[in-house]
Amino acid sequence: MSYSLGPNQYGKAEVRMVTVTRSGSTHSMQDLTVSTSLRGALEATHLTGDNSDVVATDTQKNTVYAFAKEEPVGEIEDFALRLGRHFVDSFGQITGARVMIDSHPWDRINGHAFSRGSSEVRTTAVTVSGDRHWVVSGLRDLVVLKTTGSEFHGFPRDKYTTLPETTDRILATAVTARWRYQGSGVSWTSSFTSIRSLLVETFASKHSLSLQQTLHAMGAAVVEAHPEVAEIRLSMPNKHHFVVDLSPFGLENDNEVFYAADRPYGLIEGSVIRDDAEDPGDAWYTLPAF
Amino acid sequence: MSYSLGPNQYGKAEVRMVTVTRSGSTHSMQDLTVSTSLRGALEATHLTGDNSDVVATDTQKNTVYAFAKEEPVGEIEDFALRLGRHFVDSFGQITGARVMIDSHPWDRINGHAFSRGSSEVRTTAVTVSGDRHWVVSGLRDLVVLKTTGSEFHGFPRDKYTTLPETTDRILATAVTARWRYQGSGVSWTSSFTSIRSLLVETFASKHSLSLQQTLHAMGAAVVEAHPEVAEIRLSMPNKHHFVVDLSPFGLENDNEVFYAADRPYGLIEGSVIRDDAEDPGDAWYTLPAF
Amino acid sequence: MSYSLGPNQYGKAEVRMVTVTRSGSTHSMQDLTVSTSLRGALEATHLTGDNSDVVATDTQKNTVYAFAKEEPVGEIEDFALRLGRHFVDSFGQITGARVMIDSHPWDRINGHAFSRGSSEVRTTAVTVSGDRHWVVSGLRDLVVLKTTGSEFHGFPRDKYTTLPETTDRILATAVTARWRYQGSGVSWTSSFTSIRSLLVETFASKHSLSLQQTLHAMGAAVVEAHPEVAEIRLSMPNKHHFVVDLSPFGLENDNEVFYAADRPYGLIEGSVIRDDAEDPGDAWYTLPAF
Amino acid sequence: MSYSLGPNQYGKAEVRMVTVTRSGSTHSMQDLTVSTSLRGALEATHLTGDNSDVVATDTQKNTVYAFAKEEPVGEIEDFALRLGRHFVDSFGQITGARVMIDSHPWDRINGHAFSRGSSEVRTTAVTVSGDRHWVVSGLRDLVVLKTTGSEFHGFPRDKYTTLPETTDRILATAVTARWRYQGSGVSWTSSFTSIRSLLVETFASKHSLSLQQTLHAMGAAVVEAHPEVAEIRLSMPNKHHFVVDLSPFGLENDNEVFYAADRPYGLIEGSVIRDDAEDPGDAWYTLPAF
Repeated sequence: MSYSLGPNQYGKAEVRMVTVTRSGSTHSMQDLTVSTSLRGALEATHLTGDNSDVVATDTQKNTVYAFAKEEPVGEIEDFALRLGRHFVDSFGQITGARVMIDSHPWDRINGHAFSRGSSEVRTTAVTVSGDRHWVVSGLRDLVVLKTTGSEFHGFPRDKYTTLPETTDRILATAVTARWRYQGSGVSWTSSFTSIRSLLVETFASKHSLSLQQTLHAMGAAVVEAHPEVAEIRLSMPNKHHFVVDLSPFGLENDNEVFYAADRPYGLIEGSVIRDDAEDPGDAWYTLPAF
Repeated sequence: MSYSLGPNQYGKAEVRMVTVTRSGSTHSMQDLTVSTSLRGALEATHLTGDNSDVVATDTQKNTVYAFAKEEPVGEIEDFALRLGRHFVDSFGQITGARVMIDSHPWDRINGHAFSRGSSEVRTTAVTVSGDRHWVVSGLRDLVVLKTTGSEFHGFPRDKYTTLPETTDRILATAVTARWRYQGSGVSWTSSFTSIRSLLVETFASKHSLSLQQTLHAMGAAVVEAHPEVAEIRLSMPNKHHFVVDLSPFGLENDNEVFYAADRPYGLIEGSVIRDDAEDPGDAWYTLPAF
Repeated sequence: MSYSLGPNQYGKAEVRMVTVTRSGSTHSMQDLTVSTSLRGALEATHLTGDNSDVVATDTQKNTVYAFAKEEPVGEIEDFALRLGRHFVDSFGQITGARVMIDSHPWDRINGHAFSRGSSEVRTTAVTVSGDRHWVVSGLRDLVVLKTTGSEFHGFPRDKYTTLPETTDRILATAVTARWRYQGSGVSWTSSFTSIRSLLVETFASKHSLSLQQTLHAMGAAVVEAHPEVAEIRLSMPNKHHFVVDLSPFGLENDNEVFYAADRPYGLIEGSVIRDDAEDPGDAWYTLPAF
Repeated sequence: MSYSLGPNQYGKAEVRMVTVTRSGSTHSMQDLTVSTSLRGALEATHLTGDNSDVVATDTQKNTVYAFAKEEPVGEIEDFALRLGRHFVDSFGQITGARVMIDSHPWDRINGHAFSRGSSEVRTTAVTVSGDRHWVVSGLRDLVVLKTTGSEFHGFPRDKYTTLPETTDRILATAVTARWRYQGSGVSWTSSFTSIRSLLVETFASKHSLSLQQTLHAMGAAVVEAHPEVAEIRLSMPNKHHFVVDLSPFGLENDNEVFYAADRPYGLIEGSVIRDDAEDPGDAWYTLPAF
């Protein structure tokens, strides 16, 4: 009986970093959560505990902070690329790096004070493998709701089906979107801002016969308008809002009073891929050990 | 040896309710979390399990939903007052009610679509005792940060003190504020909006020598400008942002790169009371069993 | 128009500390979360930012760690008392201290390895005021469930009541208990262990006609058996388990399949007080600013 | 410019279900969280909102509850297989199903009362594709700590390295393990119990030169002893416990007092694969849209 070391990676997760930039009395800030992970020729530490190839996770953390000072952080995609490239180029045994950054939004109050915006997060996940790299950017916890313009009917009815059909319901979700970039010269923030707007506007304006249809329309709108996007993946929980039955109290409830449920929830996941998309390579690299 | 039933209350916590109001094609929504609790002559159920005086918590929940239909919800303070008054007036054994409502913010996208705003919550806690009532409104999770204009020095140094003095630090907090109203005829939303602005503006503009000073200035600004506020209580964690020591890497860190720590955190709690404030009565009624 | 500084306190919250004690090759560990808060003559920092009386929260944190080394931590009540007494005795302006400690359970695997036990937490909250002190100990997140032996009926039915009566239901809760000690010479851990057993056994064995009755029986059992307990307060959410309606599928559900709901939940709070209990003094000192 | 619908799935997430089985006055309970997701020929709903092939997520939920009554739930792997097989066999358009179940532990108090065990969760993720199926079982949040027997040194030092080498440190982690079964006739619970013990014992007893070495030893122990396991994947955060620097207070800290940090944390992920393992097929099927 014999066995081998399988896929593996290691790194430092959730380095919380706030940076401040000053332009006269006007300050700017970035609030980031950075996670790095490395892979490569790491058999020694697994098999014998020989750590001569293990770039310590503490060193990875230090590198994040030092890089933020050595050069302005700039856009999160560029910062992630610099970090990933550094690890792969600086250490022969490290053949791949994955750098994930969450950017947390703040609204300006005055020149040096800010209030926290929504819990929505802008994300990027950069993979560097050898001399190649891929950028997957996105957002998380974009919570949207529409009070009408959503139907759900025509679904099959088996012996376990009790759900009534509806031609008017609340549709609410917390969008997680991740899109894979292709080509070069992308203006990251400009692209992000436009994609986010398309997602929000399509959700809001597209009449919905199913959350799947809404999801697909959102993804398609992005791929149509953004040639730099090879592919977009969306995960959208159906945050159920049930019409409360008020008939025992002699009251009609014409879609006015809803119970917002926690669990269970529907979970709709889908993707839209450009037909001539570049090969994904390692863009979606993960170790699915949840 | 003998003992007695001490203070007690019971109710339904965290009733999640979304209501939709339509004016032509323009919809409005309210997203509320309502908790009710009742007290009174409840010895029987405690001592013998005789429930003839126990207004079921399920009934309390139903009442919340039904009331939202019977009359427009309106301002959360008024809705809480109607609920509390109903329980006390409808059931002889119920001598007091406490109704707490969280209102979750949404931003309008179009006539019928909304995106979730920040995680900040507007709150009210209404106490009804017999024929009297009190309103304590507030907010929670108002997260604010200033990148300068904050100092901390001059504190005593004992053998356990290592903290360096600073004349320039990041100050960040998540404000919980609760203010007790007095008098009558208060315009709840208008008062809330103005108080929230004062809290934000004072945090942002007041030069800070300690978080205590900032807290007090925020509270004082509210009491000065709002005669309808008898008292305000503030709880403000000091969300530490530590300057990362980059000197091992030959880098200076002139308040540019910070580590945002989770725990521990400072916790500053304080209050400002109008000298001629009305008696608080049961306004702050709680059972501190955390 | 004039106003004053009202009740206030400040401190360091959630100092995470693990201590290890070695007896030969057998190690023991304690996993604590310590929060300290101080009050006293603190007008200066609030009004002018003069911090000469402000024992820095960083100093409070250092003191926690140093005290854990200077003398064995021992029982959490004793450790909290030493800390609280230190702050009040060492600083003239500090007239009161509150020290709260959570103790997280671990199970032993071998002489030096441990696995995390349940999420239940043993707690203490010590208040020192001048030369007096009070100890309130307890537990949190003791999650218990009984599959039978629980009824709920005989409650009043008004126009908003739809809940059916039941003579057999699941009863589940997450107990928070806090009991106030009186007298002296209490053996903390021994008392805690016995009280916890009484709470668990009473919940399990007492036939329940209401969660209030169960709560009261649990509290009464503790007060009866423990003369060192002046008073006990209990907060017990009713974690609803609803019988799933399987009749649409032609199936009977004889209390076999349940939906465990998240929200809303009932919340029952009550207390049992010894008739000749010592005066509570500042034992329950809190600033209710939630 | 053209594009296509890419990988997609949908289902009901986090169906909370408690089941009770009676054997005389002795009751048994299972506390499960079940998530189902389906895939197949689902273009219509995405492209046009035609839902004639969409087995409603509400129907999926109903099926979970009904199945729990129609036949005893039994082992979670078998229950998941029955559910997955049902969806794929009952609906022509559904070509694949994934059923994930978390089982939450309870300890028995008496014949019908239970207390919640640790927060550790037993898991299974079953994939059914056409007439094939795969079972990946595991556990999550197995929190373990050793107070000695862990070193970390010999790692490379670059300009960003400041971490001192250590020959004695606390090692703590929250193990997520998932193992893929092969062959047939597996006794699920017996296999789980033995694998869990191996993981715990190896963590506890194996002298550690790196968390990677510990992880690999844990995985290897499982693969060596369990021919029914084709592969095991482990994700183990390094929950840092830092020795508190007490030297400013004139105190030595000989690995006695530690600060348990929240973030950042190391994250070590790895796997051990049997050399003659069966092909994984769709066992690890996921849509990595996190």
